[in-house]
This record gives sequence, structure tokens and C-alpha cells, in this order.
Amino acid sequence: MLKMILDLDTGIDDGMALAYAIGSKEIELIGVTGTFGNVYTEDGVQNVLNILNMCDANHVPVYAGESHAMNQSSFDRLEVSARIHGENGVGQVSIETSPRQKEEGSAIDFLIESIKKYKKDLVIVATGPMTNLTLALKKAPEIKEMMGRVVIMGGALTVPGNASPYTEANISQDPEAAKYLFESGVDVTMVGLDVTQRSLLTNAHTQSWRETGSVAGKTYADMVDYYISQHFDTNGCYLHDPSAVINAVHPEFFTVLPMHMTVVTEGEAVGRTIGDPYKLRDANPNVKVCIGVNSPELVNHLHKTLMSLFKK
Amino acid sequence: MLKMILDLDTGIDDGMALAYAIGSKEIELIGVTGTFGNVYTEDGVQNVLNILNMCDANHVPVYAGESHAMNQSSFDRLEVSARIHGENGVGQVSIETSPRQKEEGSAIDFLIESIKKYKKDLVIVATGPMTNLTLALKKAPEIKEMMGRVVIMGGALTVPGNASPYTEANISQDPEAAKYLFESGVDVTMVGLDVTQRSLLTNAHTQSWRETGSVAGKTYADMVDYYISQHFDTNGCYLHDPSAVINAVHPEFFTVLPMHMTVVTEGEAVGRTIGDPYKLRDANPNVKVCIGVNSPELVNHLHKTLMSLFKK
Repeated sequence: MLKMILDLDTGIDDGMALAYAIGSKEIELIGVTGTFGNVYTEDGVQNVLNILNMCDANHVPVYAGESHAMNQSSFDRLEVSARIHGENGVGQVSIETSPRQKEEGSAIDFLIESIKKYKKDLVIVATGPMTNLTLALKKAPEIKEMMGRVVIMGGALTVPGNASPYTEANISQDPEAAKYLFESGVDVTMVGLDVTQRSLLTNAHTQSWRETGSVAGKTYADMVDYYISQHFDTNGCYLHDPSAVINAVHPEFFTVLPMHMTVVTEGEAVGRTIGDPYKLRDANPNVKVCIGVNSPELVNHLHKTLMSLFKK
Repeated sequence: MLKMILDLDTGIDDGMALAYAIGSKEIELIGVTGTFGNVYTEDGVQNVLNILNMCDANHVPVYAGESHAMNQSSFDRLEVSARIHGENGVGQVSIETSPRQKEEGSAIDFLIESIKKYKKDLVIVATGPMTNLTLALKKAPEIKEMMGRVVIMGGALTVPGNASPYTEANISQDPEAAKYLFESGVDVTMVGLDVTQRSLLTNAHTQSWRETGSVAGKTYADMVDYYISQHFDTNGCYLHDPSAVINAVHPEFFTVLPMHMTVVTEGEAVGRTIGDPYKLRDANPNVKVCIGVNSPELVNHLHKTLMSLFKK
């Protein structure tokens, strides 16, 4: 069992990543930390609590993290986020409110304590801006040497961004945090638009979920159908956050380019994730950039794992 | 023997690519076509004639091609080109003027005729703007189905450009030509800054050339020493054009990412070579993008081939 913390801005595809982690027999979900991005932090945390309750996973602690980027004093949710994920973040679908509350402590302290406790046995999957993780590294620099893998959904190396031609949404919402994490020496795998847009989930999949007859199956089918309806140029939805969580367990589905990556933090290309041309001949590239994926395998594996959860 | 045409804007690194092709026992150099870029077309053609004469290769015909980009009416050589390659294009080194003249016909007609004659047995290596090749394809569209591999030095996918943060110099000088070639269906391999900046040639190499005692060895040593002196942040020079000609013969030195590539032709990122996000799930990627290279092998192989030429 792989010990995992998910750092989510939940969000429909974050919700799919969460369901995969709950449903996977290979993952022990140690906790979930919430961040801003697709939604405001508090709303995302509430979505996580509700989903965990719906999926009989109330043993998983949930912590609220930062509510805005490191160098900002506030965060305004983008209109496009409300469109793609619905005003409530879960496709305007109604999920029963969890009787449970989030934990008292901060997400950052929970990350630090968990890294100190589980060390290299713990993988952290971050599917929003990298703010929580970077603030944990800044608050307790000693964890850097202890940490295992970090897998992020974010960035775009070989394709244009989705927040601008140069940047992907998660990176764009806190470029300084991403740059700090990339250059920290932590073992980072970047699951960006290069691969997440190669895999599609379709209404045929969601229909199977619905036909399980379970509340979770029906709810997820409705959520993802909404998400698919917001993809105007494909017959399905991209698998952004689910690809990252699957990478943590099944890296063999992916082709990786180890690169010395940096993040542009100024000018019109702010948020661009790009190789550092001055380090092309240096050893020990700091980021494993996913540039290829076995999409049929990944989609099939995700679907089977979700089906096993929804059939319970 | 691999039949090859080189399309060059000679230029010091074009000159190295040319010397490699002359010196390689694996290449039959069918001809050289000249283009604008590092230099004006006529000056580049004269440099090629002089180098061929110096290297006892006066059997290779040389044709002048276009003098400006497809959508332009003229070309002004950039100051930076005169700095990097020297005012005369060959590092201010004096090379004896060839007694031979360029051929009468046009480079474009020579490309068309050669493709029709040698078909898939011919590889074309283009190390300047893609203008000549694209105009050949436009003038005689029937050659598209006949053509073998095209290897270009140009573009940047995983690192910033060198003409701007978004674009590499060869592509920037005729983005429309590059876009047309990429999207033409021709078997294109892109040898861009992603790999050319991973390999360095140093003054230790050039000193060995000089010590052969030959005119060619000494001349190339002086040329490349000048080129190295214009690389302010490394202890050697990048191997842009030589990497492309070596890829044509030894693709096994390179790691390739097949991508549906496009070229931005408008706006601030004009000349950006980037994957088409709408074709990520499509079959038959149009460009083989080189993203990795066995630099020690490549540098060693280049050096050995040049040494064998200079020792003659």
C-alpha cells in the first residue's frame, strides 16, 4: 500500500482523483489537504468532506490549507473555473453534506508532520497550485531531505497552456510556489497538459457508473457528465488530476523526460514551465516531465477502479 | 552511402555540418543549396564554394536559393548573426576564393529534380530557414509523396528560443515556411535547441584539428575558435547544424518524441514551435522532435570524422 496525501482544489477532476485514491487497493490515503484554484479553499474542503462521507471514507482527515498565492493577499476565483466545474465545484450536483468537520490544524503542519512520520514512504499528489507544499518546505526546510515523491498536476512543456498560450492554470495561480518546488531538489514528477489531454473519459464510462445504482456512482456520473459538457472540442473530458494520482501508483503508464525545469515568474509568459537552457548539460535533472502516456491502459485502469468503488 | 543535399546559410556551424558531410564515409553529398539567415544567400554560397575547394570537394554542385522569407520582399541580416559568425560568416577567417562558380539553375529546381531522381533514397538536411524546401513543395507538390527524410536544425520545444523566449532563429526568419513544411506530411525530424545545446565542442578539439597541419584543419580551428569565443556562458560552442547532419546518418544517437507540431505565425510568440493540443490524441504525428541526445557519442563521432577529413 502506497501512503498518500492528496492536496486538492476540488473541482470535478480533483473529485475523480479522490475517488480513485479511495477506490484503489494500492493506496492508503493518509489525509487530504485543501487549496484554492478551481474553487475557494473552504468550498473545496467541504466538497472533499462530502465526497469522503458519500464514499464511506470518513476515516480520512481533511485539512484546510492556504486560501491564496504566496505573493498575493487574496484570491478571486476565475469565471472560467465556475463554468468548467460548476458554481459549487462539483458540476452543480448536490452531494449530501457530511456530518464531519475538517480538522483543526493547518494543512501545512499536517504535511510537515506526515513527511516527518512517513518519510520516503509517503507520496504527495498536488492537483492545485503548489502553495501548500512550498510553504511547508519553507516552514520546515529539514523535510526536503526526508520527502519521497511529489507528483503534481500542472504545467505544459510540449503544448500551449490552458490559462494562456504559455501557462497551465495550476501553475499560473502561484508561479512562485511552483518555481520554488521545482528548484527545491525534491523528487517532482510533472503531470501536465502534455499528457492529461491525451486521455479522455466519455459518457459511456459515466453511464456505467450510473448503472451501478449506488449514490456515489450516480453522483459521479452526474458530476463528470457536467464536466464533459464543458469540453467543447472533444467527445469526453480530459483527465488532468486523475492522471497525476494514477502516475503516483503506476508510473509505468507514462513516458518521462527528466529535465532541469524552471517557471517564468515575470512578463507576459508568467507561469510558463520550461527547460532551463543553461542547465541542459547538467546532471540530476530536477523534474520528471511526463511527455507520453499509455492512454488506453490509464483510462481502463481508472474506470475499473472507480467501478469497484461505486459497486460497493 | 546516404545521398544527401544540404540546404545551408553558411555560417560557422553550417560550415562544420558541411565538413562533416564531406568527411563522412557514410554520406554521398549530391549538392548544396544556399539560403539566407546567418548570412546573405550570396555570401553563404561563396563560403560553401570556398570550403568545398579547400576540402577537395569541387565535384559537389552548389546552387543559390531564396534571398528572403516567403512573405517578405527582402532580408536584413541581424547584427547578432554578424557577431556570432563574423562579418564574413566564417569567423573573419580568410579562406582562399574558389576558382569555381555556383551552378546556373535555382536551388528550388535542383531540389525538385533531385527528389524526383533519388526519391526516398535522398535525405535533405536544412540548417537555415525552411524557405527553399517549402517553395519546392509549393512549386511541385507531387514531390511530397516521393520524398525521403527531411532533417531540420530549427525550433525549440522544451527550452526557450534563442531569437526570443519563444522562437529559435531559423524558424523565426520564416515561420510560415516552417509551418508549411511541418504540416505538409513530409517525414520531418526537428533537431532543435532541445538537443543542439546539449553538446559542446571545445578549444581542445579545435587544437587537434590545427595540429593536423592541414590548411582545412587550421582554417576550421580558427573559425570554430571564433565561434566558441562568441559563446559567453559555456566553455565551448553549441552544435546546432552539425547535430542535424549527424541525425541524418545516426538517428540512434537521439531520443525522439513524435508530435503533431505547429508553428505560431502571429503575435508575440511568432515562430514558436509547439505541439498542437487539438491533435494530441491523433495518429501519425507529423514531426519527430529530438528531445535527447547521447552527447559524448555525438561529439566524439563528429570530432573523429572531422579529424579524418583534416588529416587528408
